[in-house]
Amino acid sequence: MPGAEEFVVTPYEVRGRVDYDRLRELFGTQELTSELLARLRRLAGGELHPLLERGIYYTHRDLPGLLDAYEAGRPFFLYSGRGPSGPLHTSHLAQFEICRWLQERFRVPMFVQITDDEKFWSRAGLSREETLRWGMENLYDILALGFDPKSTHVFFDSKSIAALYPLAIRVARKIPYSSVKAVFGLEPSTNIGWIFYTALQTVPCFWPSWAEGTSVPCLIPCGIDQDPHFRLTRDIAEGLGYPKPALLHSRMVPGLLGEAAMSTTGSTADNALFLNDPPATIDRKVRNAFTGGRATVEEQRRLGATPEICSVWALWRSRFAESAETLETVTRDCRSGAMLCGECKGKLLERIHGFYREHAVAREKAKEWAESAIVTAPPPGRES
Amino acid sequence: MPGAEEFVVTPYEVRGRVDYDRLRELFGTQELTSELLARLRRLAGGELHPLLERGIYYTHRDLPGLLDAYEAGRPFFLYSGRGPSGPLHTSHLAQFEICRWLQERFRVPMFVQITDDEKFWSRAGLSREETLRWGMENLYDILALGFDPKSTHVFFDSKSIAALYPLAIRVARKIPYSSVKAVFGLEPSTNIGWIFYTALQTVPCFWPSWAEGTSVPCLIPCGIDQDPHFRLTRDIAEGLGYPKPALLHSRMVPGLLGEAAMSTTGSTADNALFLNDPPATIDRKVRNAFTGGRATVEEQRRLGATPEICSVWALWRSRFAESAETLETVTRDCRSGAMLCGECKGKLLERIHGFYREHAVAREKAKEWAESAIVTAPPPGRES
Repeated sequence: MPGAEEFVVTPYEVRGRVDYDRLRELFGTQELTSELLARLRRLAGGELHPLLERGIYYTHRDLPGLLDAYEAGRPFFLYSGRGPSGPLHTSHLAQFEICRWLQERFRVPMFVQITDDEKFWSRAGLSREETLRWGMENLYDILALGFDPKSTHVFFDSKSIAALYPLAIRVARKIPYSSVKAVFGLEPSTNIGWIFYTALQTVPCFWPSWAEGTSVPCLIPCGIDQDPHFRLTRDIAEGLGYPKPALLHSRMVPGLLGEAAMSTTGSTADNALFLNDPPATIDRKVRNAFTGGRATVEEQRRLGATPEICSVWALWRSRFAESAETLETVTRDCRSGAMLCGECKGKLLERIHGFYREHAVAREKAKEWAESAIVTAPPPGRES
Repeated sequence: MPGAEEFVVTPYEVRGRVDYDRLRELFGTQELTSELLARLRRLAGGELHPLLERGIYYTHRDLPGLLDAYEAGRPFFLYSGRGPSGPLHTSHLAQFEICRWLQERFRVPMFVQITDDEKFWSRAGLSREETLRWGMENLYDILALGFDPKSTHVFFDSKSIAALYPLAIRVARKIPYSSVKAVFGLEPSTNIGWIFYTALQTVPCFWPSWAEGTSVPCLIPCGIDQDPHFRLTRDIAEGLGYPKPALLHSRMVPGLLGEAAMSTTGSTADNALFLNDPPATIDRKVRNAFTGGRATVEEQRRLGATPEICSVWALWRSRFAESAETLETVTRDCRSGAMLCGECKGKLLERIHGFYREHAVAREKAKEWAESAIVTAPPPGRES
């Protein structure tokens, strides 16, 4: 286990108490400054999504260049993805929520990648049947967030391979084993599918440029832990004649038990709110969640609690406070001791249950068009 | 350069004077005994193909078990392939010629794999356009040997990926990087496509079993240099629930300039007879070919020549002597000094030109059905 000052962030592991400023320096990403946020707000019609407003998204790569192109009449596209190892949890939604908002505000296409092959390769315990089933289940949850069926396209790796492979062949030749090893820290026992996989995660970044025979900028909103994948992509982009994808990175939402990030591994299932959790399970998980509260009621009334270390406050902030005012009230009443943890959890649970009810309805509608959004053929004229 | 006693045989390199008995020991393959040849002759209706009769095919893995199953009413299928880096030369035909004969005599399906992705990954100088173009050109040449359109199927990797990938995902998880490195001797600079590729070369071995949901034995006739690919395949077969493929290995036909094997690299283009060489080029190459002749006519008349070291004799033996009697006459007249090298080359050239003329006609017919033989979809019920 890392000590208090140590942390580990890779696409396959998040551990320790993450120092996000230090991580930005380590990864060499750019700060999402107030100037840049103001520019985004202006281009988005005067509003900012709460995830941007509240600093959940906090660093980027090449965002100004992407917005320059947009303002010059050259629209970008959005790309994000999911490795289907099990049910989604609420913190997975941040990256897709921001995509949905950007799609709506900038009227741009969205590409969702479901990496059922990668999860089969990287998780020894998963069967193909499981990664396929979770792939479709996760896809319904993602599309249910409100993506536009007319401009949302899905690469479901095993179903879309004919569309991806001609470009993947070209991409894979540019990536030496040593680069993959340096970025992901693979072992001699790592299977060759996993090694190859990063080529397939790069393909969607270039796919629209390849399809249209022109340079189409790409924006990838993702957790900062996924940045290493796309550093490889950015390294080879120009050699293939495609633009480097721009990135927008979020912090990870802490786990309910106070861990660095919500996790889907079985041993810590109580650490996260899964989208398929029944109401009673959600109640139990939130009631048991780690907070910034004091040892006794008396002490908390007197000294107040600490939202910065509280997993419940992180849920308000990342998703469930519907407005800045709500978040402000919650934060103030927490800090002052006016609201105890039990009351706070009760109010949060109302919001969570409300979201789950609405989501269930939207999910049924998403099922109607999910299959038809999966891209199964290469672009015309790019068959091989 | 290896010394006289040294040689190197890998799927990507053949060098030095190959000691085939030693190679059989090194690789751990089984001798194709006279008992086994007699059994093959009986099952094939009383005849043996010249390539078997003359010892060009000389070792195997698990052939008796395959024939046991065949005699018990469980037919096998044939699988062989080609990496399309350029035009085929005459020595490439041995493996397909034996497949064609086995298909006809045993009435079994044939699967041809064209590895246009692999050649792009393993040959830095080749473009995708070249591997695609040579893939189709090579395929016409292969099918023109007389394969039965009703039971011949083609995996053209980049065009067949939707058919191959669902099974490739399962295969790739079973192959650790360390195995690929041990077999192929890859470097840190090796691209990740090349590392992944061996999974795709394994897929056809299991594809019919996967498609039919039952165990279908596989027989792979190939040059012995390709054996390492299939050792990996055999290692993982049982873990996936499929039978180990059986193999039938040929010696390599020596190059016209006396090298260990015909080669297609540009610097030694005179070493091989390409199927797209015009007649004058063939004349020149054969006239310049390395022989086992003596320094002077007088000496050769007196002492005779040495067929065993002669590249022209190797051509008679591997393909162009239409009967055992012809080969015997050529060999006897060579050894006795009755026939000089110029005369021998003239007689051989007649046969070669005759073959090229017939082949050109058959090739035009093969073009009519080649595209329709390419498998582009997974088997029904095995879509993912």
